[in-house]
Amino acid sequence: MHKKQISKAVINRLPRYYRYLGDLLEKDVVRISSKELSDKMKVTASQIRQDLNNFGGFGQQGYGYNVEYLHTEIGKILGLDKKYNIIIIGAGNLGQALANYVDFERRGFYVKAIFDINPRLVGLSIRGIEIKNIDELKEYITMNQVDIAALTVPKAKAPQLAADLAKWGIKGIWNFAPTDLHLAEDIIVENVHLAESLMKLSYKLSEKNKANDK
Amino acid sequence: MHKKQISKAVINRLPRYYRYLGDLLEKDVVRISSKELSDKMKVTASQIRQDLNNFGGFGQQGYGYNVEYLHTEIGKILGLDKKYNIIIIGAGNLGQALANYVDFERRGFYVKAIFDINPRLVGLSIRGIEIKNIDELKEYITMNQVDIAALTVPKAKAPQLAADLAKWGIKGIWNFAPTDLHLAEDIIVENVHLAESLMKLSYKLSEKNKANDK
Repeated sequence: MHKKQISKAVINRLPRYYRYLGDLLEKDVVRISSKELSDKMKVTASQIRQDLNNFGGFGQQGYGYNVEYLHTEIGKILGLDKKYNIIIIGAGNLGQALANYVDFERRGFYVKAIFDINPRLVGLSIRGIEIKNIDELKEYITMNQVDIAALTVPKAKAPQLAADLAKWGIKGIWNFAPTDLHLAEDIIVENVHLAESLMKLSYKLSEKNKANDK
Repeated sequence: MHKKQISKAVINRLPRYYRYLGDLLEKDVVRISSKELSDKMKVTASQIRQDLNNFGGFGQQGYGYNVEYLHTEIGKILGLDKKYNIIIIGAGNLGQALANYVDFERRGFYVKAIFDINPRLVGLSIRGIEIKNIDELKEYITMNQVDIAALTVPKAKAPQLAADLAKWGIKGIWNFAPTDLHLAEDIIVENVHLAESLMKLSYKLSEKNKANDK
């Protein structure tokens, strides 16, 4: 298949397609038209057709999409046909929430170890995954295959820690610290900025209130 | 000030400006040029000027931006000059993480109550905020001013719960359940889909690996 450049907007929408198709699979739906998928996802059918055409188009005129096939193929595009070993750095509530999230495993993301600086947490286990002392981090990364490090540490600690992780060979960082990490170009950083999400909500609430006041 | 229609892309960038300006304020920086801000934020200076011009432009030729003023004004645009009462539904790790996140309070978001179905959690407190039985939810919302409900409940419970919350008068939902909520148009939903964020990371990792294999 000839590979076109896929726009970032399309890529950003793929996980949502994947989620909807997974939900349909769970309900034993075998096929779906772009119209039905459009009704469910609240995007236009033409948007769906256009998005999926980027990948050669999975639909068949008059039949629609084969749900399982489309789910598998989008999964491959998203790299979900591989396994990823994750470590979580920061065993606070958020780190524990991530460690407990078994759904990640279904998609090939395996939490292998958790690290913390707090001696009261070190040695405890979450779902059988031991919380290790952060002093062991470098050795662990050197001795084990680690694909992704999730950072749930305070803002002030994140930049140095991320720089160290990159130096030690980590290629993917899932960053929950409320700061941007500026690393070498070949390190991939995906941010989850909770406070910014909350601000978008307050923006919309406040816009709505202004409209109502008029 | 005449109010233009602001694009969604600009709005999505505002929380990040707000965060950077807040960091500068903490470091007692009084003013900053678009060039300096551009270097820090890794966006072009012209993008910054263009974005901020949407709000009348806060910069002064040859002086740059007054950090505190710009921070305050963007805060107002984001609705952060108001206070919001939040309830958290779901007192698992993620709900507890949100309840413990004191930074939200600095920005005017006050967690007032937490609800859960689990009798082992009901009655406990997080930062002095009591975990209440979910049976009391309706009465609580009726008797108290609640602006935002954060949903950290399982996927299967979220749609019905969100519909109830809307019926009882909640206008803003911060949704962490891995499902989309389809509610009346005047209900504002902001989603945090962690699994989708992780998929974006795996997509980028897998693209990079493909490029390296060539």
